[in-house]
Amino acid sequence: MRIGVLGTGMVGRALAGRLAGLGHDVVVGTRDVNQTLARNEPDGMGNPPYAEWQKDNPEVRLVLFAEAGAHGELMLVDVANPLDFSQGFPPLLSVANTDSLGEQIQRAFPDARVVKTLNTMNAYVMIEPTRVPGRHSVFLAGEDGSAKESVKGLLGEFGWTEEAIFDLGGIRAARGTEMYLPLWLSLMGTLGTGDFNIQVVKA
Amino acid sequence: MRIGVLGTGMVGRALAGRLAGLGHDVVVGTRDVNQTLARNEPDGMGNPPYAEWQKDNPEVRLVLFAEAGAHGELMLVDVANPLDFSQGFPPLLSVANTDSLGEQIQRAFPDARVVKTLNTMNAYVMIEPTRVPGRHSVFLAGEDGSAKESVKGLLGEFGWTEEAIFDLGGIRAARGTEMYLPLWLSLMGTLGTGDFNIQVVKA
Repeated sequence: MRIGVLGTGMVGRALAGRLAGLGHDVVVGTRDVNQTLARNEPDGMGNPPYAEWQKDNPEVRLVLFAEAGAHGELMLVDVANPLDFSQGFPPLLSVANTDSLGEQIQRAFPDARVVKTLNTMNAYVMIEPTRVPGRHSVFLAGEDGSAKESVKGLLGEFGWTEEAIFDLGGIRAARGTEMYLPLWLSLMGTLGTGDFNIQVVKA
Repeated sequence: MRIGVLGTGMVGRALAGRLAGLGHDVVVGTRDVNQTLARNEPDGMGNPPYAEWQKDNPEVRLVLFAEAGAHGELMLVDVANPLDFSQGFPPLLSVANTDSLGEQIQRAFPDARVVKTLNTMNAYVMIEPTRVPGRHSVFLAGEDGSAKESVKGLLGEFGWTEEAIFDLGGIRAARGTEMYLPLWLSLMGTLGTGDFNIQVVKA
């Protein structure tokens, strides 16, 4: 599949590297290619410069956002959380309750088939669910059923089983998965690690 | 333990009945005792009139909020979600992201030792966790460690095991457990039942 990953941070790198390793044709989009490659300091989150990662992943081309968007197959997988660090740590959400990032993206790109998924765990668990033992869950939200089926396929390639995937319905359900973030942050503090997930258990 | 339950709806009844059954000295608080007992129609959520429940639970006295508060042991267990049905179903939250109901209650009653818990599941699972098979989790948030220990004891009486209980820290963590509500509602829609819960799974 031709896939454009938007964002050069830890999550974008993890997804792009994993997808390329699975044989997909992957580009990463950024605002300014030269600027991104010229950075030689760790970013604000402590990630090494993109150029270092690029050396280990030469098959993934860095391109402008617009080119990355055009490269992808008219499906937009949103794995982001609308983090607002303006009040320090822990972050607030920049949108919540009456709207969500997923809904904003779908409204901004009405022709894109937006699928919200994977934003309820860290990037390592996203791409390698077996890091966390036993059963645990991942959520999907989006308006387009066939786009969700394609994303299910990608999740399957990452190692997510059929029973682990919960389709929550339309893109409005992105609100729930984004608003789970504060609980995730509290649990990370309590557990002392971000390598965890939640499992839905039904009676 | 002397316990005052504030609220005569489904959740209040479930907790009061269960706690009384366990041998606790329980009263239920309401705004107007006569009015509550005079109702003979199901409430807006379809629950039978309180007077019917009262017949089956004669040991639980119905009193004014203030009396219920005085009856309790200076510990306030908040199991509520700040539901806002003004925009219809699914409800929004009346407070989220920058504040929570748990924090509001603690600010309003600075001398009460507020503990937020049990608000991440339906009332049946709260009081009888074995309804949902296998392991699943419950959260605690509050400023007072000894109050949280007391609540852990009550949770244990309901059937929650030690490993199932996650102490998330201070009352601010109530935000996370309340903001989980939209995800819970989506899952209820997907699963077709409210008899479920989430389990925290660590690497």
